[in-house]
Amino acid sequence: MQSARQRQVEAARGLRPLDWVLENIQLVNVYTQEVYPAEIGIFEGMIAHVGPPGCFAGSAARRYDGRGQYALPGLVDSHVHIESSMMSPAAFAEAVIPRGTTTVVVDPHEIANVVGLRGVRYMLEATADLPLRVYAQAPSCVPAVPGLETAGAAFGPAEIREMLTWERVIGLAEVMNYVGVIQQDALMSGVVGAALEKGVPISGHAPGMLNEALSAYLIAGISSDHESYTAEELWQKLRAGMTVEGRVSSFLESMTAVGGIVRQLGALPSNLVLCTDDIFPEDLARHGHVDRVVRLGIAGGMTPVQAVCAGSLQGALRHRLHHLGALAPGKAADIVLVPDLTAFVPDEVFCGGQLTARQGKMLMDLRPAQPHPLESENTVHLPHPPCREDFLLAARPGRTEEQVHVLVVSPSLQRSLETRAAWCCGRGRWPARWPTTVTIWW
Amino acid sequence: MQSARQRQVEAARGLRPLDWVLENIQLVNVYTQEVYPAEIGIFEGMIAHVGPPGCFAGSAARRYDGRGQYALPGLVDSHVHIESSMMSPAAFAEAVIPRGTTTVVVDPHEIANVVGLRGVRYMLEATADLPLRVYAQAPSCVPAVPGLETAGAAFGPAEIREMLTWERVIGLAEVMNYVGVIQQDALMSGVVGAALEKGVPISGHAPGMLNEALSAYLIAGISSDHESYTAEELWQKLRAGMTVEGRVSSFLESMTAVGGIVRQLGALPSNLVLCTDDIFPEDLARHGHVDRVVRLGIAGGMTPVQAVCAGSLQGALRHRLHHLGALAPGKAADIVLVPDLTAFVPDEVFCGGQLTARQGKMLMDLRPAQPHPLESENTVHLPHPPCREDFLLAARPGRTEEQVHVLVVSPSLQRSLETRAAWCCGRGRWPARWPTTVTIWW
Repeated sequence: MQSARQRQVEAARGLRPLDWVLENIQLVNVYTQEVYPAEIGIFEGMIAHVGPPGCFAGSAARRYDGRGQYALPGLVDSHVHIESSMMSPAAFAEAVIPRGTTTVVVDPHEIANVVGLRGVRYMLEATADLPLRVYAQAPSCVPAVPGLETAGAAFGPAEIREMLTWERVIGLAEVMNYVGVIQQDALMSGVVGAALEKGVPISGHAPGMLNEALSAYLIAGISSDHESYTAEELWQKLRAGMTVEGRVSSFLESMTAVGGIVRQLGALPSNLVLCTDDIFPEDLARHGHVDRVVRLGIAGGMTPVQAVCAGSLQGALRHRLHHLGALAPGKAADIVLVPDLTAFVPDEVFCGGQLTARQGKMLMDLRPAQPHPLESENTVHLPHPPCREDFLLAARPGRTEEQVHVLVVSPSLQRSLETRAAWCCGRGRWPARWPTTVTIWW
Repeated sequence: MQSARQRQVEAARGLRPLDWVLENIQLVNVYTQEVYPAEIGIFEGMIAHVGPPGCFAGSAARRYDGRGQYALPGLVDSHVHIESSMMSPAAFAEAVIPRGTTTVVVDPHEIANVVGLRGVRYMLEATADLPLRVYAQAPSCVPAVPGLETAGAAFGPAEIREMLTWERVIGLAEVMNYVGVIQQDALMSGVVGAALEKGVPISGHAPGMLNEALSAYLIAGISSDHESYTAEELWQKLRAGMTVEGRVSSFLESMTAVGGIVRQLGALPSNLVLCTDDIFPEDLARHGHVDRVVRLGIAGGMTPVQAVCAGSLQGALRHRLHHLGALAPGKAADIVLVPDLTAFVPDEVFCGGQLTARQGKMLMDLRPAQPHPLESENTVHLPHPPCREDFLLAARPGRTEEQVHVLVVSPSLQRSLETRAAWCCGRGRWPARWPTTVTIWW
């Protein structure tokens, strides 16, 4: 009984027919940063051959005409919360695959905040059979802000250790309590320590962190960040060897600045990867996913090939997914075709060698036959459709003033700030000097 | 009781004095490929701070004047046989550290061929306390050519599995039986399979391997090679995502061609690293070690910064030594100072934050107080100093002709060839049409 690898070796040698050959393409090589005519042979979901057109010694069952398009590796989202899409993982996959995303590294900390480890398991179980490759990092900060939330779980080192034994859990997710990390509080030291024991990559979240604090955060073991916006901060983090996750989310984007830095450097830093973090469904549908991150990088000043490298090989290597991220023998056959490298609108998307999406549309239905049990519990039950009155805050009986927690989102979307403010007005109104967009917990 | 990491975090924040600061340097940044004025703060062997001159908020016990030199990460030799230096590991370290090499990934297959696993253990034990960081790969092909050698051991999957449990054994060493790999013979499949199970990097040796055979070798799991010489072969391997170990050994060099490729690409492939493979003692003393590889790369057309990146960060990442290879917070303080980036003659070399060599000379004696027990057994005993007659071959009594095995080394040193030849002459002479340099086994 031969293993898959044994069969693939034989196919590469031409001793078995390839499943199919993708021909008539311009290959984007993420190792040499070249673009040249090539053909790609696929066998059992893996790339078994890459070479000049027509050079393969063996045969192939089928051929697929790339119509002169550019072929590049499937895009890798190095950090995303599926929950922000407000969709199930299968629906999320249907939204992002047509955009060229074939691998996502998710931080399921929103669902973990509601149902704890069961939520993380759900994210793994609900993604096990998708053509989208979904890897998870163990949520490091559940709850996100202890004391300010009514959280459904509290994760400590024991939970981190448990998750890191699960298949497809490949790291520790954004360590948001960066103050706790550099001040070495017991919980954060324990959580980070559990990941250090396993030797997995530890991802970060360090807005505005520079100089001594940045060094301390890196030394503590956290090696990436997606919360930088100014060129100065991004540049310092790149120089410090931190993996910079260039981001375009529904809130914020750093790729304009990142693109400008890469253009000025004249070389692609190997520690630059791409991510989307949080994307709302309307943005996904309108603007795209990692493809949009690539486009903003190009607009910012990167070459298309540099942006593709950051969004494929470099993301895969960051997460030590050595079988992904390149169009080369032995890599998974996750392939995206784009007619124009600069406009960068993916046409065909192949996941594991299967044509999965074309012209922005899925070619298969990913909805599971049976919904996951978790999807039919803890659902939201409303007595009537929400109306304006449901969102008004009333002071408790007998009181005219209350304290509330307020998250202030600044108009520039460049920084958010948590604070406690005195709510001292009548029913549902607040002082005019307050910003217009606030999120209130009570 | 604080851990080293906890103390280092405090030192980075300026809450403890740094051990020392290296000031007045031009930092070679292997992430951004920039060179700029900087200072580096060291605490307990680790880099705790890197920043603009004079910016550190904390204090330092000492300062060291870099005298305007270029500071770069200690060089990484991605593949070397210490045995070829004909020196003990300590003497080898004394020879290479002054050249700027601070990390070597060794394949102890020569000593393994003589004394088996004990030889591999010796290489680990004899290097445990050196300032040179020595990592080993498990020798994959012991004996090198079954049936042609009188070998002291034969390694199979069980030996590979055992070695891969040892500390500092970080991969499988050059899989020289590339024919056996792609033809999937039982021994090679088992040996490679043992390394695949552990998920460690598997290094290769694939002279002249191209096209279908190269794809098959990569798919089998072997991901590097140092045996390419023509630009065409090097270029194809880089494009295929194979880690190319650009080499300058005592036999051969590929860096002239590698340098030319990088110059033509205009970008450094992330899968290019440097190695020396086999260096004889005279070459080490005269020409250097990885510093020489860097110089030849520069002469071939790479920029000095590209050559340094390949010889430090990229080598460290290839071997998943994430704490090495860069001058950045959290990395080991292995630092080389060179007065001129292009001439590239290392002056000071710091290993783990300690000044270890200067102006080509070691500043400490690495000879162990006690020789390792293995060094005083199995030594060579000769009845008299070797003379010409000792190297003559005599036919066995009663015969005038013998069959011998001959390794023909071509004058260009570009390829060697094993063959069996009829030895049909008298005592110790051979036909004039034979090449002048041959190695004979009997």
